Amino acid sequence: MPNRIRTPFIGTRLASACTALLLSWPAYAAGASLAESGQSLAGAGLPGVPACTSCHGAKGEGMAAAGFPYLAGQGAAYLESQLRDFADGQRASPIMGPIAKGLDASQIKALAAYYSQLPAPFDKESLAGHVDTYPAGDPGAWLANRGDWSKVIPACIQCHGPGGIGVGADFPALAGQPAAYLQAQLTAWKAGQRPPGPQGLMGDIAARMDAQQISAAAAYFAQLPPTAAGQPSGTAANSEKAPISSAGAAPSPVERSSGAPPSGFAPPPADAIPDNEFGKVVRQGQDIFLRTGEHAGKFVGNSLNCVSCHMDAGRRKDASPMWAAYVMYPAYRSKNGHVNTLAERLQGCFAYSMNGAMPPADSETIVALESYMYWMAKGAPTGVKLEGQGFKRLPAAAQAPDYLRGQKVFQKNCVLCHGADGAGQKAQGKMVFPALWGDDSFNWGAGMHSVPTAAAFIKANMPLGGMDVLTDQEAWDVAYYMNAHERPQDPRYTGSLAETQQKYHDAQTDLYGQTVNGHVLGSAAPPPGGSLRK
Amino acid sequence: MPNRIRTPFIGTRLASACTALLLSWPAYAAGASLAESGQSLAGAGLPGVPACTSCHGAKGEGMAAAGFPYLAGQGAAYLESQLRDFADGQRASPIMGPIAKGLDASQIKALAAYYSQLPAPFDKESLAGHVDTYPAGDPGAWLANRGDWSKVIPACIQCHGPGGIGVGADFPALAGQPAAYLQAQLTAWKAGQRPPGPQGLMGDIAARMDAQQISAAAAYFAQLPPTAAGQPSGTAANSEKAPISSAGAAPSPVERSSGAPPSGFAPPPADAIPDNEFGKVVRQGQDIFLRTGEHAGKFVGNSLNCVSCHMDAGRRKDASPMWAAYVMYPAYRSKNGHVNTLAERLQGCFAYSMNGAMPPADSETIVALESYMYWMAKGAPTGVKLEGQGFKRLPAAAQAPDYLRGQKVFQKNCVLCHGADGAGQKAQGKMVFPALWGDDSFNWGAGMHSVPTAAAFIKANMPLGGMDVLTDQEAWDVAYYMNAHERPQDPRYTGSLAETQQKYHDAQTDLYGQTVNGHVLGSAAPPPGGSLRK
Repeated sequence: MPNRIRTPFIGTRLASACTALLLSWPAYAAGASLAESGQSLAGAGLPGVPACTSCHGAKGEGMAAAGFPYLAGQGAAYLESQLRDFADGQRASPIMGPIAKGLDASQIKALAAYYSQLPAPFDKESLAGHVDTYPAGDPGAWLANRGDWSKVIPACIQCHGPGGIGVGADFPALAGQPAAYLQAQLTAWKAGQRPPGPQGLMGDIAARMDAQQISAAAAYFAQLPPTAAGQPSGTAANSEKAPISSAGAAPSPVERSSGAPPSGFAPPPADAIPDNEFGKVVRQGQDIFLRTGEHAGKFVGNSLNCVSCHMDAGRRKDASPMWAAYVMYPAYRSKNGHVNTLAERLQGCFAYSMNGAMPPADSETIVALESYMYWMAKGAPTGVKLEGQGFKRLPAAAQAPDYLRGQKVFQKNCVLCHGADGAGQKAQGKMVFPALWGDDSFNWGAGMHSVPTAAAFIKANMPLGGMDVLTDQEAWDVAYYMNAHERPQDPRYTGSLAETQQKYHDAQTDLYGQTVNGHVLGSAAPPPGGSLRK
Repeated sequence: MPNRIRTPFIGTRLASACTALLLSWPAYAAGASLAESGQSLAGAGLPGVPACTSCHGAKGEGMAAAGFPYLAGQGAAYLESQLRDFADGQRASPIMGPIAKGLDASQIKALAAYYSQLPAPFDKESLAGHVDTYPAGDPGAWLANRGDWSKVIPACIQCHGPGGIGVGADFPALAGQPAAYLQAQLTAWKAGQRPPGPQGLMGDIAARMDAQQISAAAAYFAQLPPTAAGQPSGTAANSEKAPISSAGAAPSPVERSSGAPPSGFAPPPADAIPDNEFGKVVRQGQDIFLRTGEHAGKFVGNSLNCVSCHMDAGRRKDASPMWAAYVMYPAYRSKNGHVNTLAERLQGCFAYSMNGAMPPADSETIVALESYMYWMAKGAPTGVKLEGQGFKRLPAAAQAPDYLRGQKVFQKNCVLCHGADGAGQKAQGKMVFPALWGDDSFNWGAGMHSVPTAAAFIKANMPLGGMDVLTDQEAWDVAYYMNAHERPQDPRYTGSLAETQQKYHDAQTDLYGQTVNGHVLGSAAPPPGGSLRK
């Protein structure tokens, strides 16, 4: 998988020279790099354009007391688009409007290049590594880390990365931004006073946040930078509740955490896991569910987490929620021709969706996941198919799913997060956006490689945080496109593609062994355990 | 365990001589055995007493067309008590009354001895071995093999043995008796016209049977003798429905099979297991549940079955029903200090209650039992304690439980089935009445060795088919008595009785390591795997 984390070249190219070089803007033309030109411009300004440093600090670290955001380490694409939006008035700001208007396109590019390669004013490693738990009853921490799926608000970290450290060029860091700044931006989005951003996502999401949630989320991220001890004050395991003075009254747990349809079964509030020995194991299951590689690594062969397909920590209807799955096992499965307990069904997830190995039925991993699912299903009727179970099947496509139409849907809606190569995106080595194909994705035996299953999932859940964005036809087409790419071999591979296809696959619903664009799918996948990379 | 099956001595003492000996009654005084005297009397009669053989056949085989029962192979105690009851008019019969009045006590004894040692007119081995399944929708077969626990009617075979072949001296065989005879007896019990028998059981049970059930049960047993092929016509696996012409309309499945309280959760009808791949595994689980040693022998170390403690195939409330247990796991258990899945809980049953070995969590045995439990819990709310769950706790005893009082309760109420030595009773090698202590019972680690648990179970379920027979105090006392006997060692035995007691036992609730009547309980139990027998 390509490394999408930008290497700050200040360390390699600029650091030794940065005190000596204080060039005026024309120096850009004289052979300086884009970032060097940006640095010069940021420090000196232009006629009618005050120096960026005067408000955003000498190192782009911002000025929290005044509510001025840090710029250091933010993605270049993000910074560029903001300056353009300020310039043309789409993003309204009495301060930044006139300044941005004074910059031409090359100057905007230079400033974005400069600030994007400065080190972020927080400890990425520490923040990314300390988001395991969050106090119950802290609405900001919950929104940030778990979202509010009753309103289809994904967790902030699902796009902004663990600890809000930012992801790639397009998803800015939030950690440690001034609370007043974050609150103003969310409020502006909600009011339609800031462009809704790529895919329109932030506009949509902020519109569904209420004032309390905006305040709480802003306060949460504002206090995130590591304390002196290197521990984020609001996210550490067993930390006391973070002081969120501006958060107002906490919304009720059910409002905050229910992902079930109002008319159907509702799992217990997500923060209601009991504080006892049983609750410890439930939490362990939740941890495995949310960060599978971290907590059950020896059974995981890619960077996916359970939550990659089962949104809202397995609580979301139509994303194969765990409360609905729990009550349907043991069950006979045609996939393997016998009755599967829940333990065996979970083993299948590890073998196929996680492209890994099956945990033993009595392993800590399976016990914890079963306990988490059982807790979530509290009160659900045993053996009864609940509303929202599985992935809601789409009606048959009006037109047969098509690779080229799917590619267009993909490029428009999916590349932002999953990348043009479908390899997803990581931050600090942690998967933020899952790989859709290739070595780091689910294998040719996973349920998601079935086109109808993928279409149903995509229609109901993608783009993340969007609501009914794709048409049925678009969902079918992009599912076909996704599943017309190579991925790890089916673990049931017999040594013969044709035989494996015949024994385990269905040409009506999946493309394994089928020829698409002249390539026989599955033929490039090495035997189980091998790599697709040359 | 002593062999309580009577060895027919006709083979060893009488067979060679039986054609030569046709003695008249006075020969009794002349040195003939009791049975020989009985034979003589049966064949010759007395003045005013017609020969038994004239109605009951030359070999005691009865006369089905006339509704005269067979006597051959019935228990001596049973036959004696019937003749006495005929004689004093308690059992009303215009035919047998005058005949029995013409016999003195020694003649009655001789006849009982004679008929009890004749071979039964059916193939015991074949009948005992072919009761695995019974057709759904056959009310007679269901009553006989499963009972109707909605009316606290145990299965007939629970006392009369597999296939109705009879058990010990007190429980007569039913297989192949004329339907008219069986129907008349049940009707007489129901009407109070026949003495209710030991413990009053048959009077109580028949009173709860309706006319259709009486007719169906009678018809079922009447057609039971093996066919020419050696297969009981109404009980074979996959047999067609037995022709029960006199059964009338079948009661509804719910009436027939629900063991749940009217106000609480009701499992699906017992005969509603689906005919599909999943149903096959559910049936396998049911088979294990009902005949554990036969279907999961390698994990069983005694002669108990799951159903020995969990009445009505695990459906009966207050007998720790499986539908209520299913929805309570995974759960933290103080017994082993961690969260147990259902699989581990079931493993515990095998290790302790069955004094055997733990089946692997993904073994066929565990999968089948889990499937059976899941099927039975259909519709039950996950994680919710249901009415009837577990063994209903008794209030604390007014007087501390006492060994001698318990012994009296035992002798009066329990010996008939479980034997004076607590070793239970078998028929054709199959356990009918479970051993309560000793090598063939549950071990010192089983839940039932706790006095409060045993008292709760006994109060709710014993004597089998009785309703609220024992007072609370009697239940406490007899539970104490039962659990003040030696049984197999606790599998957690550390090598030291005192240490094992301290680590795993509670002197407040169980007697392991306690001194009763001068004996330290557990001290005679050899290390796990050994035998209590000298």
